[in-house]
Amino acid sequence: MTTPQTTRRIVLAARPHGEPVDSDFRFEEAELPALGERQVLLQTLDLSLDPYMRGRMSAAKSYAAPVEIGEVMVGATVSRVLESTDPAYAPGDVVLSYGGWQTHSVESTSHLRKVDPALAPVSTALGVLGMPGFTAYAGLLQIGKPQPGETVVVAAAAGPVGSAVGQIAKIHGARAVGIAGGPDKVAYVRDELGFDVAIDHRADDFVDQLAAATGDGIDVYFENVGGRVFDAVLPRMNPFGRIPVCGLVSQYNTTSLPEGPDRTGQLMGIVLSRSLTVRGFIQSEFVEAHHDAFLADAARWIADGSLRYREDVTDGLDNTLDAFRAMLTGASFGKTVVRIAE
Amino acid sequence: MTTPQTTRRIVLAARPHGEPVDSDFRFEEAELPALGERQVLLQTLDLSLDPYMRGRMSAAKSYAAPVEIGEVMVGATVSRVLESTDPAYAPGDVVLSYGGWQTHSVESTSHLRKVDPALAPVSTALGVLGMPGFTAYAGLLQIGKPQPGETVVVAAAAGPVGSAVGQIAKIHGARAVGIAGGPDKVAYVRDELGFDVAIDHRADDFVDQLAAATGDGIDVYFENVGGRVFDAVLPRMNPFGRIPVCGLVSQYNTTSLPEGPDRTGQLMGIVLSRSLTVRGFIQSEFVEAHHDAFLADAARWIADGSLRYREDVTDGLDNTLDAFRAMLTGASFGKTVVRIAE
Repeated sequence: MTTPQTTRRIVLAARPHGEPVDSDFRFEEAELPALGERQVLLQTLDLSLDPYMRGRMSAAKSYAAPVEIGEVMVGATVSRVLESTDPAYAPGDVVLSYGGWQTHSVESTSHLRKVDPALAPVSTALGVLGMPGFTAYAGLLQIGKPQPGETVVVAAAAGPVGSAVGQIAKIHGARAVGIAGGPDKVAYVRDELGFDVAIDHRADDFVDQLAAATGDGIDVYFENVGGRVFDAVLPRMNPFGRIPVCGLVSQYNTTSLPEGPDRTGQLMGIVLSRSLTVRGFIQSEFVEAHHDAFLADAARWIADGSLRYREDVTDGLDNTLDAFRAMLTGASFGKTVVRIAE
Repeated sequence: MTTPQTTRRIVLAARPHGEPVDSDFRFEEAELPALGERQVLLQTLDLSLDPYMRGRMSAAKSYAAPVEIGEVMVGATVSRVLESTDPAYAPGDVVLSYGGWQTHSVESTSHLRKVDPALAPVSTALGVLGMPGFTAYAGLLQIGKPQPGETVVVAAAAGPVGSAVGQIAKIHGARAVGIAGGPDKVAYVRDELGFDVAIDHRADDFVDQLAAATGDGIDVYFENVGGRVFDAVLPRMNPFGRIPVCGLVSQYNTTSLPEGPDRTGQLMGIVLSRSLTVRGFIQSEFVEAHHDAFLADAARWIADGSLRYREDVTDGLDNTLDAFRAMLTGASFGKTVVRIAE
């Protein structure tokens, strides 16, 4: 095998207005730099696509700097080491990296983590054993704090975060109510993931179904979608309810505020009168204190069957944009992964 | 002194629509019941008027049951014991009770607390040493958790809660920025209470003044007013900022939602991107764990001059409605108390 000299990659060409279109991106071939000290040349095997990436495409103030125009799109990857100047990493090692939307990258080893191919398929390091799984674990347990018998509601329940939220809630003795889009996902959430109830948000009587499924109110709403699901959930929150906010995917592609009336004050009024906790978070704040426990817990739960997962795998870097749009609109089913190489 | 047989009282006659008007209430004379076991006949000395009472006048779902039509309006009182069937209470004792908007009441002693007239004027049991003071103490320290050098913003800063919030923030080493209405209150907040900055929310350049006063952003916003102050504060919240929500007085008299656009999603977007905590609360949830410490701390701070307070005293039950409206609209200055008897 000859060592590759270039990487094929997708750079941000323009800031998307609404749903990202092909012309917001550009495919290009770029030279790979020579390895410096403690660096590795990586071949991307699997690229993770996640909702937060839509935020990085915008210039709005957020917790992370936006991707600059002309820069390669960011993203977590599972990659194979091809060359190394760090004795701790040998060619053939598989690592979790932040390689981005490209076929190869040169990375410093300080931020890499080795992935054990014997433990589970390596792509799970991007999903149930990776950032989405940890997002569910940390947000639910550290902010949501579900108690036995309480009701936990989560949307995008067939997705990588929502599916883990409901199953971890069940493991902790709570009732799990999942919201998903379409009969296939609803059946999967109920029958394969074992949620107590699964509801189709596209149903005409969605609000009534949610009310029937949460007769004792809602104690924890794990917010990852926003929009009309949030509208339906909020009036059903119980006193001292908790709302970890990890995403608002329904509004990431919106370009203007919705029509009025302005319900901000109404929202704050419910927060006040029900003593609710609404807490935005990113998983990174919990890594130091809780990531080791997560890996141990999640591996055990996967082994004993109480934590299941599903991947939606697209082949080839060329199809990344379509896969990204499908994830944002809910057309994907499971953790979205682009297989760049075997 | 002959024992009174009746009480003069104000009952709710209709649920107010917007600002309460005189016809929403009725003055009446009512027979006092005979004392049962462990009861006292109380003469109201001071009646507390507080924003939460506006909520009790409405039938909307909240943490507390509404006052029924025809019932006496609720409210905390400092009262004098006239007769007693409980050996622990003697005629002449002064107690904190929940006597309501009336001159006399018969109460069971189980929920009374004795007030020591030697410690401070007894009316402070309704203000800085009472529920408003404890609301500030518990909400700021248990939810806001100000750290030395952080910036704490509070509105209604000349009022009983806001004034304590800023002063307790200072005691804990934080910067205090107070918002108040009109030059007299602004001067009081800055010069007498010792806030680092005081801003008039009526100023044309209020938003710019707030920005100048919070150059390093806002770490804690103690929310007690809502509306345009909240709108100005929100974009200036720092990552991991905390917003204890104890009141929304600016919207208590509103009868319909404001015009759009609907900024609910925008609010949630900021909560997410800044990892904010928004937490509604009522002081009662913290009483068991923190009220003893509050009384000890607050008495010490009052004695050493680091916690100052101001009362806005109206004489006579007949003037209760005007005093209540003045409190809701911000025309009052300090803790609103109606002196019913000396």
